[in-house]
Amino acid sequence: MSTLSTTVLEQSELIHAIDSIWVALCAAIIFLMEGGFALLEAGFVRSKNAMSIIAKVIIDIIFGGIAFYLFGFGIAYGNSNGWFAFDLGITTEDLGLGLTVSNKLFWFIQLGFAIAAISIVSGAVAERMKIWSYAVYVFLFCAIMYPMVANWVWNPNGWLALRGFNDFAGSAAVHAMGGFSALAAAIVLGPRIGKYQKNGAVNAIPGHNLPLAAVGAFILWFGWFGFNPGSTLGAVGNWELIGTIATNTFLASAAGGLSTMLYTYFRYGQVDITMTINGVLAGLVAITAGCNVVGPNAALIIGLIAGVLVDVAVLYIDKLKIDDPVGAIAVHGVNGLFGALAVGLFATEGGLFYGGGAAMLGIQALGVFVIGTFSFTITFVLLKIMKKTVGIRISKEEESAGIDAVTFGVEAYATFE
Amino acid sequence: MSTLSTTVLEQSELIHAIDSIWVALCAAIIFLMEGGFALLEAGFVRSKNAMSIIAKVIIDIIFGGIAFYLFGFGIAYGNSNGWFAFDLGITTEDLGLGLTVSNKLFWFIQLGFAIAAISIVSGAVAERMKIWSYAVYVFLFCAIMYPMVANWVWNPNGWLALRGFNDFAGSAAVHAMGGFSALAAAIVLGPRIGKYQKNGAVNAIPGHNLPLAAVGAFILWFGWFGFNPGSTLGAVGNWELIGTIATNTFLASAAGGLSTMLYTYFRYGQVDITMTINGVLAGLVAITAGCNVVGPNAALIIGLIAGVLVDVAVLYIDKLKIDDPVGAIAVHGVNGLFGALAVGLFATEGGLFYGGGAAMLGIQALGVFVIGTFSFTITFVLLKIMKKTVGIRISKEEESAGIDAVTFGVEAYATFE
Amino acid sequence: MSTLSTTVLEQSELIHAIDSIWVALCAAIIFLMEGGFALLEAGFVRSKNAMSIIAKVIIDIIFGGIAFYLFGFGIAYGNSNGWFAFDLGITTEDLGLGLTVSNKLFWFIQLGFAIAAISIVSGAVAERMKIWSYAVYVFLFCAIMYPMVANWVWNPNGWLALRGFNDFAGSAAVHAMGGFSALAAAIVLGPRIGKYQKNGAVNAIPGHNLPLAAVGAFILWFGWFGFNPGSTLGAVGNWELIGTIATNTFLASAAGGLSTMLYTYFRYGQVDITMTINGVLAGLVAITAGCNVVGPNAALIIGLIAGVLVDVAVLYIDKLKIDDPVGAIAVHGVNGLFGALAVGLFATEGGLFYGGGAAMLGIQALGVFVIGTFSFTITFVLLKIMKKTVGIRISKEEESAGIDAVTFGVEAYATFE
Repeated sequence: MSTLSTTVLEQSELIHAIDSIWVALCAAIIFLMEGGFALLEAGFVRSKNAMSIIAKVIIDIIFGGIAFYLFGFGIAYGNSNGWFAFDLGITTEDLGLGLTVSNKLFWFIQLGFAIAAISIVSGAVAERMKIWSYAVYVFLFCAIMYPMVANWVWNPNGWLALRGFNDFAGSAAVHAMGGFSALAAAIVLGPRIGKYQKNGAVNAIPGHNLPLAAVGAFILWFGWFGFNPGSTLGAVGNWELIGTIATNTFLASAAGGLSTMLYTYFRYGQVDITMTINGVLAGLVAITAGCNVVGPNAALIIGLIAGVLVDVAVLYIDKLKIDDPVGAIAVHGVNGLFGALAVGLFATEGGLFYGGGAAMLGIQALGVFVIGTFSFTITFVLLKIMKKTVGIRISKEEESAGIDAVTFGVEAYATFE
Repeated sequence: MSTLSTTVLEQSELIHAIDSIWVALCAAIIFLMEGGFALLEAGFVRSKNAMSIIAKVIIDIIFGGIAFYLFGFGIAYGNSNGWFAFDLGITTEDLGLGLTVSNKLFWFIQLGFAIAAISIVSGAVAERMKIWSYAVYVFLFCAIMYPMVANWVWNPNGWLALRGFNDFAGSAAVHAMGGFSALAAAIVLGPRIGKYQKNGAVNAIPGHNLPLAAVGAFILWFGWFGFNPGSTLGAVGNWELIGTIATNTFLASAAGGLSTMLYTYFRYGQVDITMTINGVLAGLVAITAGCNVVGPNAALIIGLIAGVLVDVAVLYIDKLKIDDPVGAIAVHGVNGLFGALAVGLFATEGGLFYGGGAAMLGIQALGVFVIGTFSFTITFVLLKIMKKTVGIRISKEEESAGIDAVTFGVEAYATFE
Repeated sequence: MSTLSTTVLEQSELIHAIDSIWVALCAAIIFLMEGGFALLEAGFVRSKNAMSIIAKVIIDIIFGGIAFYLFGFGIAYGNSNGWFAFDLGITTEDLGLGLTVSNKLFWFIQLGFAIAAISIVSGAVAERMKIWSYAVYVFLFCAIMYPMVANWVWNPNGWLALRGFNDFAGSAAVHAMGGFSALAAAIVLGPRIGKYQKNGAVNAIPGHNLPLAAVGAFILWFGWFGFNPGSTLGAVGNWELIGTIATNTFLASAAGGLSTMLYTYFRYGQVDITMTINGVLAGLVAITAGCNVVGPNAALIIGLIAGVLVDVAVLYIDKLKIDDPVGAIAVHGVNGLFGALAVGLFATEGGLFYGGGAAMLGIQALGVFVIGTFSFTITFVLLKIMKKTVGIRISKEEESAGIDAVTFGVEAYATFE
């Protein structure tokens, strides 16, 4: 029934096609993760702010996406001096990455990384940040901040890339980047009214719709199977690697959920199901850097550690009176940091525990330290300046009434009829 | 570990496999868009009709899918006289489209287009149409109406195809087709009780679960990255095009959301977040025709225009006292029309703004005008006949009590316990 | 712009890449089905147990996934004596399946099958099973029970495989396996308090959030287009088959929904929309075994039968006072059984209705009978033992207050503010 021409194509045509399918579909799946972030965060906040947090993620996509088109991509993947590049838009030049897909398709998959990074921040500023100030921050984040880090890590001339920093799908460049920005943002914004009492007690503010948060969590979990395997940027020559990455990604996520279940059960006598979701995500974040270089048992161990780390970190951050409504700092910041270090510990070739010495661990530590410090500092300074000038926090009246009602004039759940 | 035979396969075997993967996965993603339609529409109506609108979308899939199998596909892709074809079922003959995938797989992806078109109508008739009358209409729509339009546009012998009408993934054939049918249906049905007051005031009826609508919106947004790139119907030879389409699709959606945010903010002092979701969808609809032939900056401009058009159209349609509960006419009808015209304006080769003269714009205008008129007229006449005979509108009692309770005997949210 | 080496690759490299893309993406889509199960089941139970059922599905993934990594995969796909294998972990040896993907990637897609099977059980034990006892059962199910059945059916040396048992994507090995385990579990657990009254009346316990259940249903429907076509385990050489499977899968699902709509309408005067969702799923389950060997009209007929079977089965199971909160036994057990038999009836080559005699039907009946008996018996005995020892049922107080509050200390929907 088909009418294939008898002309034989160059093999390169097939390779381009195969790799483009792979990247296009993984990129679409990564894009869907924005829905995951939005719904997870919406479920974890109060109903009076549910649509405002969804709006923030839509702003991540819209403002972040346009910024990453106009400026970000060129800064990340243009002709780099090791720290920065000055191209604009999507160049048609060879990026030096040995890509077999078009630069536009590469842009589309990288877009998903940029807006994932900023979406981490959207959770930490939930329920109290002004929408337009947030939009400005998002633009700068995706136009300059994230692209600079991507430049260091993934540009062929980036200073970390040249030193052999292994951050395969971005535990550092995406998650630590987003997580330490989230930390700075939560500090500058201050806690929600009523979160911390004068006597030091922490007032838990439960999420209003945990099944909705679960919708988001399942979408994110699914999305990671585009995020990590898709970071191969091509299937030809990588077919065994794709299986390795998928298996590692799953095992770390399962182990993260498992250790959180056990930890919360033995510590509190009850399994904390929202923390278990965060434990799964922590496992995913932690395996993101090393999913290409560790074995499956190492992936399990990395996940087990991540699932405990996230529990401890959430408590510790709360003790510091840093209010992070959805646990973004603990999930992405702490485990992004851990994930980058875990490469230096568990990599089959070069990892400390596999007889590789400390060299790899050193560069991993250096890279994630610089990235964390950079993202924290820039965000801190930027938001401080904005705080003094345009303002970043909604009024007490709005915080009490809800951003949905005041900024958007809607109710997430209008009177049921 | 693998056991590949040493026999070398014909290259055509690889091409078939590559293109079949691409089409099968894009088709699955397009199919998921039905979930997007259902949840978006359910969130935008009142809780008393939430399950009825989900039922309508399930009817789109079930009745529409079976109709498109028995009759629709043959009418669309059979041996055409330019306007119609008379085949039944899924032929095994060469369709003249140069397909490298099986006719069944081509059917499966085209199915997604047919049921997407009718799902546009389901939104406009929400909260007041009889379920069985709707099922009959769905059957006729997917058996005959949509397939005729697909025949004109995508059959190799279709009269519009022969004139060079460019409607790559269906701004006209899917969205204007559905949107103008939706317009006729909303007119014939009349508004919901209480929507328009005697003094001319418009009574807003807010959606009952906006986070649920957001779930639908994110699924639709994701689905478009199957819909538009998947319309290549094969990756071999199209690898650069796939990147172009994905990038354009994203940029138009972001720009559509952006201009709606800005428009509603400056016009009303508040960002309208449900309209922003519609603005994103409007951008997606508008780029659907030309995603293969415009540049990224043109995609941004098309999206910016679409995002304003949808706002203006919603108000104008309301002024005409045409009750469209979810904004389907403004999103799909108006922007489907605009998207078809935009090809004639912005196409890099042949577009008016790129020195191509008015010829392309002329055929685009002709095509979408005929499609819009056809779908409006047939739907109008058909529903008028059904109104006089079997009836199309639920009773006042049912409208007051809710379709869920009366037709289905359920509550979307039974007493929480 | 790209920099493809001029070295020509072995054709096998392309085949590996093509098939790995296909399997990796189908596997990811299958994995997402867990979200479908969780949300469908959560919507169908009471709000006081919504998070507990989501937790059960997360346990399916976590405990089931780790069990299937440590023990299950080796038992299923190791060196089989026809009934069992004794390997551990993911072997790197040739599995004798002619795979063109890595064993790890094959593990990842098979993982989706294992955790789908156990997720069927999670629905039947909803609202009354102890979480840790369930976790132990899940571990044993995915470490030993399911892998044994997979060994029989899909291991090249499995006793059913050697006899030509056709269970393409697992109507028997996944759905009947899960469904008959669910039957045993529901019997041993006993009904929820208040479900059956002393006078024999059945007390319907409506689901608390049907739109949430619809989210799950659409995800499952989508997931089946990874599940069935992905069971080809490779696209090269299977491109026509992929189209056949996708078409059959869709047609059976639509027909299943259609016959349920009509059946419930004519029997009760109202369309039962939750049963319609189950009818769609029943059609999907029933076509899963034979989607590769039946024609499209047979797929329609199989779906039509499945849609009625599920209605009748739900009533009959209720009459037996077996409490299955989400209809898992009727959907997966009964229609898994039917689907396996339907191959023997409708297969174009070998089916009874196509002149193939009764031989194929005989082996299909034998296979599904043994699988059903095995899964029922082992689950029955296992849960009886656990009932006598560690206990499997929550206390009456917990059942009244809700598992969410007592076991997890959360509310699915904390006071809206």
